Formats: sequence, C-alpha cells, structure tokens
Amino acid sequence: MNSVSDNRNIALFLADGCEEVEALATADVLKRAHLPVTMVSINETRTVVSSHNVTFEADTTISKINFDAYDMLILPGGMPGTPNLEANDMLVSNVKRFVKEGRMVAAICAAPTILAHAGLLKDRRATCNPGRYEDLIRGDAILTREKVTVDGNIITSQAMGTAIPFALAIVEHFLGSEEAEKLAENIVY
Amino acid sequence: MNSVSDNRNIALFLADGCEEVEALATADVLKRAHLPVTMVSINETRTVVSSHNVTFEADTTISKINFDAYDMLILPGGMPGTPNLEANDMLVSNVKRFVKEGRMVAAICAAPTILAHAGLLKDRRATCNPGRYEDLIRGDAILTREKVTVDGNIITSQAMGTAIPFALAIVEHFLGSEEAEKLAENIVY
Repeated sequence: MNSVSDNRNIALFLADGCEEVEALATADVLKRAHLPVTMVSINETRTVVSSHNVTFEADTTISKINFDAYDMLILPGGMPGTPNLEANDMLVSNVKRFVKEGRMVAAICAAPTILAHAGLLKDRRATCNPGRYEDLIRGDAILTREKVTVDGNIITSQAMGTAIPFALAIVEHFLGSEEAEKLAENIVY
Repeated sequence: MNSVSDNRNIALFLADGCEEVEALATADVLKRAHLPVTMVSINETRTVVSSHNVTFEADTTISKINFDAYDMLILPGGMPGTPNLEANDMLVSNVKRFVKEGRMVAAICAAPTILAHAGLLKDRRATCNPGRYEDLIRGDAILTREKVTVDGNIITSQAMGTAIPFALAIVEHFLGSEEAEKLAENIVY
C-alpha cells in the first residue's frame, strides 16, 4: 500500500458505453471523501451515454485537460466503453506514461485489460472482471482474482459490484485507511 | 417475502438532489435482470441534477406517466432529493395509494422517511439511513436497522452502500432468489 499522498487530483475517463455505476459510484465516494475528481469525457462533447443507456454530463472533455495536472487516472469498465477508451490514443499513451513514471492508474471491470494489452501488467499483481482473466494472463500479470488489488501505482478491481471497495481503495491511497473506514461506515458499506 | 410476480413494470423517481448511485445502481441491477424500469423525473423536464452535481437524463417526466401502468414505485434518497420527492403531491398521493392497495413501494436511505411521515410504516418492519432512524420511530415503524428489509409490499434500505442489496431484493421479489443470486454473482457482489 502506498503512503498517504498530498497530490490528489483525479481524472476519471468516460466513454460511450461506460458502466455508469463503475464510473459514478467511484466518483461519488471520492467526492464524499472531498478528493477533487474530474469526470472527463473522451467524446468531443461532455455528453456520455452509458452501457445501460443513461445520458449524463462529464465535467470536461479530454481535449481540454492537461494530463500533468492530475495525480491519478481512473478507467471504468463497461461495454463498449472499455474498447472505446482503448481506442483513444491520447488516453492510452498517457496511461502508459503514468504507469512508467510511477504515477497512479486505477481500472475496474474490463478496463484492466487496457493495461494488460499495453504491456503494463507484466509481473504486476492485478485483478479484473472474471470473464476477462485470460487477457491479464496473456499480459503476464500475476492474477489475484481479488475484488480489489493494489500493486504499487496500479489499482485494479473486478466489476460493478466491487465499485465501492475499488473507490475505497483509492480513498485509502490518498487519505489513509482510517478515512476510508470512516467513509465506508458513513455510506453503510 | 412475496411470491414471484408477473407484473413487473417499475417506476423509479428522480428529483434534483437525488443520490445518483442509489438511483442508478438500482436501475442498473434491474436492467441487468431484464426488469422494465422507467426513470421518471419529477421536474418539468427529463433533466435531473444529482446530490453530487451530476446532470443526467430520466426516461420521462411525472406529468406524462400513468401510475396504474406500474407495479412498483421506487424512491431513492439523497439530499435535497428526498424532501424534493416528498414535496411532490402527485407522487406522495400515489405512494400512499400503492401501499394501501397492497402494491409495491421501495425506498432507500432517507426516502423511507417519506413513508413514515405519511403514516405508512405504522407497525411495519422497515429500515432507513441510520441518521434518520428517529423519523421511523416517530412513525411507529418496527425499526430493523437491517441493510434491507422486506415487509410485504414495502422494501426499505439504508444508504448508498446498500444500493446493490436493495436492488437485488427487488429482483428477488419479481424473479425469485435464484435469479437474484445469479445476478449478484454476475456483478461480483
């Protein structure tokens, strides 16, 4: 587990077809922890349509952000949200750079496969949606099959049903375990 | 626990200030179970702004629906979403009618207090957000302090962190425990 960090700017990336709860439950928990999270649409506009056909608004678009203003990049899963994120060269090149520079990247559900396909999980402990384990194995990850796995600067998680523990692991990274436990109690998790 | 039902039309009501995860995680789980859920804005338009300032679109507005086309009404919590729902006379009068006619009503977080204030929880087993227990006690409810309580046609739950078990209890009502368990496994809950 990383030590508590003072640099807490978080960017959460949204594509059409993203799993809305993996995105919004994560953002919700981070907001409750008073962590500054920016929801970034990878579309040309702020509007995103989720995997269950809910239309919602991101805070900004990827063309407007400066990646170096952020300390963590978060990738929610969902279909076809995950391949849509993976097809975005600007996003994937920055994810690679973040991982290599030791900066934080977090991915849930199918999204850890983006890291695996980019060669970023080689010899790293990681988890993902059980239906996509093969992608992580092919990427030479050390597959944990856990709900949430923290390996240095990479946090991964399994599915919509693990979005809250995924978000709590991010809170723990930035604010420590006591804050994460207090928040879990507050939301009755 | 109610027996499995064939009449499965569900209306989920959204006010400005609703807790987006309590609303959208519930809808998400119901959609995964192929239960027909309609997200109904109580505003004049379909646009709703959540308690954590996310703008999203409901499927329709309350002025356009026929309550008798629905078999269950769902009330998410959040502040000020809950008092906003409670201030809507059309909604509250239909909630009262549904409960009295033995039709299903489900409420989570602060929203069970709407039922308590309307006198609908007298001698009924129910739960709600721990910060609002007093409202249920004053409404003569039998307070369970459970994550989810099913008492006949009333399903109540505690908070954002219990949205998935809340939704799974609704799936169980309509489709039985086996389907609910299969879905829980599928979303890795």
